[in-house]
Amino acid sequence: MSGSLAGQDIGRLLISCPDRPGIVAGVSEFLFERGANIIHSDQHSTEQGQGTFFMRIEFSLPGLSAALEQAFTPVASRFQMQWRFAYAAQRKRLAIFVSRQEHALLELLWQRQAGDLQADIVAVISNHTNNAALVEAAGIPFHHVQISPDLKPAAEAFELELLDGYRVDTVVLARYMQVLSSEFLAHYPAAIINIHHSFLPAFVGSNPYQAAYVRGVKLIGATAHYVSEELDAGPIIEQAVQRVDHRHGPADLRRLGRYIERVVLARAVTWHVEDRVLLHGNKTIVFA
Amino acid sequence: MSGSLAGQDIGRLLISCPDRPGIVAGVSEFLFERGANIIHSDQHSTEQGQGTFFMRIEFSLPGLSAALEQAFTPVASRFQMQWRFAYAAQRKRLAIFVSRQEHALLELLWQRQAGDLQADIVAVISNHTNNAALVEAAGIPFHHVQISPDLKPAAEAFELELLDGYRVDTVVLARYMQVLSSEFLAHYPAAIINIHHSFLPAFVGSNPYQAAYVRGVKLIGATAHYVSEELDAGPIIEQAVQRVDHRHGPADLRRLGRYIERVVLARAVTWHVEDRVLLHGNKTIVFA
Amino acid sequence: MSGSLAGQDIGRLLISCPDRPGIVAGVSEFLFERGANIIHSDQHSTEQGQGTFFMRIEFSLPGLSAALEQAFTPVASRFQMQWRFAYAAQRKRLAIFVSRQEHALLELLWQRQAGDLQADIVAVISNHTNNAALVEAAGIPFHHVQISPDLKPAAEAFELELLDGYRVDTVVLARYMQVLSSEFLAHYPAAIINIHHSFLPAFVGSNPYQAAYVRGVKLIGATAHYVSEELDAGPIIEQAVQRVDHRHGPADLRRLGRYIERVVLARAVTWHVEDRVLLHGNKTIVFA
Amino acid sequence: MSGSLAGQDIGRLLISCPDRPGIVAGVSEFLFERGANIIHSDQHSTEQGQGTFFMRIEFSLPGLSAALEQAFTPVASRFQMQWRFAYAAQRKRLAIFVSRQEHALLELLWQRQAGDLQADIVAVISNHTNNAALVEAAGIPFHHVQISPDLKPAAEAFELELLDGYRVDTVVLARYMQVLSSEFLAHYPAAIINIHHSFLPAFVGSNPYQAAYVRGVKLIGATAHYVSEELDAGPIIEQAVQRVDHRHGPADLRRLGRYIERVVLARAVTWHVEDRVLLHGNKTIVFA
Repeated sequence: MSGSLAGQDIGRLLISCPDRPGIVAGVSEFLFERGANIIHSDQHSTEQGQGTFFMRIEFSLPGLSAALEQAFTPVASRFQMQWRFAYAAQRKRLAIFVSRQEHALLELLWQRQAGDLQADIVAVISNHTNNAALVEAAGIPFHHVQISPDLKPAAEAFELELLDGYRVDTVVLARYMQVLSSEFLAHYPAAIINIHHSFLPAFVGSNPYQAAYVRGVKLIGATAHYVSEELDAGPIIEQAVQRVDHRHGPADLRRLGRYIERVVLARAVTWHVEDRVLLHGNKTIVFA
Repeated sequence: MSGSLAGQDIGRLLISCPDRPGIVAGVSEFLFERGANIIHSDQHSTEQGQGTFFMRIEFSLPGLSAALEQAFTPVASRFQMQWRFAYAAQRKRLAIFVSRQEHALLELLWQRQAGDLQADIVAVISNHTNNAALVEAAGIPFHHVQISPDLKPAAEAFELELLDGYRVDTVVLARYMQVLSSEFLAHYPAAIINIHHSFLPAFVGSNPYQAAYVRGVKLIGATAHYVSEELDAGPIIEQAVQRVDHRHGPADLRRLGRYIERVVLARAVTWHVEDRVLLHGNKTIVFA
Repeated sequence: MSGSLAGQDIGRLLISCPDRPGIVAGVSEFLFERGANIIHSDQHSTEQGQGTFFMRIEFSLPGLSAALEQAFTPVASRFQMQWRFAYAAQRKRLAIFVSRQEHALLELLWQRQAGDLQADIVAVISNHTNNAALVEAAGIPFHHVQISPDLKPAAEAFELELLDGYRVDTVVLARYMQVLSSEFLAHYPAAIINIHHSFLPAFVGSNPYQAAYVRGVKLIGATAHYVSEELDAGPIIEQAVQRVDHRHGPADLRRLGRYIERVVLARAVTWHVEDRVLLHGNKTIVFA
Repeated sequence: MSGSLAGQDIGRLLISCPDRPGIVAGVSEFLFERGANIIHSDQHSTEQGQGTFFMRIEFSLPGLSAALEQAFTPVASRFQMQWRFAYAAQRKRLAIFVSRQEHALLELLWQRQAGDLQADIVAVISNHTNNAALVEAAGIPFHHVQISPDLKPAAEAFELELLDGYRVDTVVLARYMQVLSSEFLAHYPAAIINIHHSFLPAFVGSNPYQAAYVRGVKLIGATAHYVSEELDAGPIIEQAVQRVDHRHGPADLRRLGRYIERVVLARAVTWHVEDRVLLHGNKTIVFA
């Protein structure tokens, strides 16, 4: 993918609706009439035009404002669309949850610093303290929230309050080793991204590298997905693998795995914050 | 890429023109008004909307006929388009040129048999005879055309006559070890696809595996490209690489290379026959 | 891997034994004293030298004969080795089992013809007839053995007799869609290679591409493994993956999957026939 | 590769010599008699046993000391070996040279912190100042050495003095945009590693991403190599590629390229500091 454009004039329109002729004409004419120039456009039809239609349009429009949304409502109604506009100038606000391991966090911090991440990391929350200095050196607030079985409801309530205070819209679990409750998840539907350290659906659950070692696989993997109620079963955003062989013990798999985990998570977060990911049931459409 | 659709009703519209607002609206409205349903649509803008606009639309339209082309002319004029319609029902007619080595030819024959190639292989032409039985067993005419420096003009003239007789529109050089003359090339602009056995522009010319061995590269590659006057310098359609190491001698590189050559060539041919490749100067836009 | 050498003088020694100092010295001295020249040597120690030691040595020795094996017995006893000698001149004798789909079979036939497979394909057995002509055109006997639930014991008995008659030492299941009985498997321990059309252990069982589609994975895979009693759970020899996305329906996954299936199976068969695969419990050590 | 072992008892023996029977026996017997246990062993013969023999042995020996080297001299003489022992406990001492771009430097710092790099980064030298804070925060001395055409000899003399003071044995050019003089290179033969931002030998020289863009390649690459007198022509240690397409402008190529540059360089440095790289003329043998 080429990077999405940034700037006051850049908007993105995301659509899904029952497929039928005329949608592209209707939408593109709407944008043309308002003076918008389409820069990128991706679409997808399921069931060869008989199912659902998905679209993402990136456009520039001088003086872009929310007035456009109101004007679009009749078009959306005509085609029974689920739709939203997103604005490049309104960067997403991320909170990163992390436990001890820092590699996935570091990658996101680095991409932010390199200007490759079109989002703001507004807070880091951890059930450990070892990454505090690193995060604060980057000028980002760090919150230590201890978790234990009996403290969990209170801890999550506190975390939700923090997220609310920071006006967070996306939560990234960058090797956060705690399971979030259904109540917590309900606050951020399709907005919590996790990195699982296996090629899902192989090796669901904890300690997947050990399981991969025991099974003797020749490739290990990592999977970024939206978190849903069922553990490690949410919509997959991105996956990658790494070749291994008989010489690699469990510690080697963990070491090599870190390099794909960080890349896969960062790619998924990038696509999410650039509004490139649409949900289709328990699957994703990624206009990368 | 998902396979392009086949069928009487399936058309593809390919466009390039100076970029400006309204093109998508104009084209999609045109198709909508005629009752066409857009199945796939890809577009690309160079220079962030200030350069050239490229588009490929795959649509279905019951009763599809060339009348559509005439109706489209005013739209095309309005936007100064270079454009063409292609019809899934009019399969491209390929001639394969091959020398001794059969792997690239075999791959194309196999993809044809598997139904993965939306084209007809109407003839195979070779400056050797060793592949005759193989080709004829597949029910395809095989022509042996000997080449030598003094015979070359006559041989090429004969080949052009053969191609003409078979109404060939695309020539595939499947490890054909002869250089075609400018006169020959002029008959099939952007319609002769070659597989070069290196990762171009590294190792232009003959014996690239030996050159790769001497240089000690850690990856070898293959490149499918349209043939142009300058040797190995035409628009690249597809490339792939294969890891090698110090244990591989030149013969090993040739052996391993065959597996990427055949895949890269077949992929390029597939994209070409499904009208997914557009030219942009000496580069390609591949709507894969 | 570079190709294993062929020739009257080329031998391979495969060893596994409890690890301890002196093994390499003992074996290499033995070979040196008999005039053998080591061409390739690979070794692997589990548990950092405290577990099991595995070794594969490829050597040349003019006048190589089975007398060498007898001479080696004391060395083997001293180190409590499991061991065997293999001779490049005694090519393995393969039977290929296939159902309707021909791609994996075709790949093996092609590699044989290209001289890339150091083995003889002595028979093809199928529960369908559609591949008969293809096989017989290659000069290989084809046997149609119909399978139905009540015929299965008799069919397997017949197949075993066929294999015996052809002096088969390795069975390759090249998309053979029948489950072999435990009794059958017992005749060819660690000598039946299957290609499973998923990235095991994900999508065990039938119709893995449909399952992959439903789960929305971003990579599909193929796994070559030795067949063991538990379905799809035998030692993995090789795996590879292919990127897919939301545009690919189940039919696309099957189509794309064929290209990795054939490559993964051929690679596993090559390693097996060149005596590069050693078993370590339910895992493989591949000296590729 | 599995990680090389660390510890007082771990030694590595590196050998190259004319090939002939008896080398492995001679070396392994030598190690066995002194009580060493071979943990890993890799070897390579060129020209199928008629050329040069290369070997790397990793062994453990309680009380390992330089006395072993003296004892080995007669064995080495007998086989006309070039050889050296390396000791895991004597970590290599690296100096990193960097210009403005920090990604390759950051990767090495991160791998050091993660414990994945078996070496000490003893100094960072830059012709810019922008990375000073980053380096000093990691507790590593940072030296700014300005370069201009007329200052270059003096600057290099100063740098050599710095390196000498830090007892540096390996110099890593982590996107250092200055050409080092022959005089400088002569001080660190086969010990200066550079990352070039193309798939060499394609796009030698400056601005390779722009050149790749103009040529329209479908993969971009990165190459880690030892620096030799001829620019970008030294022995290649490692290479990798990344798929790109028509949507990527030069800035996108640079952005995507950073991710392979950092990985390729870090891998090459790891192999070098674990004594896994042997030179064979202008090529490398990497026992990864």
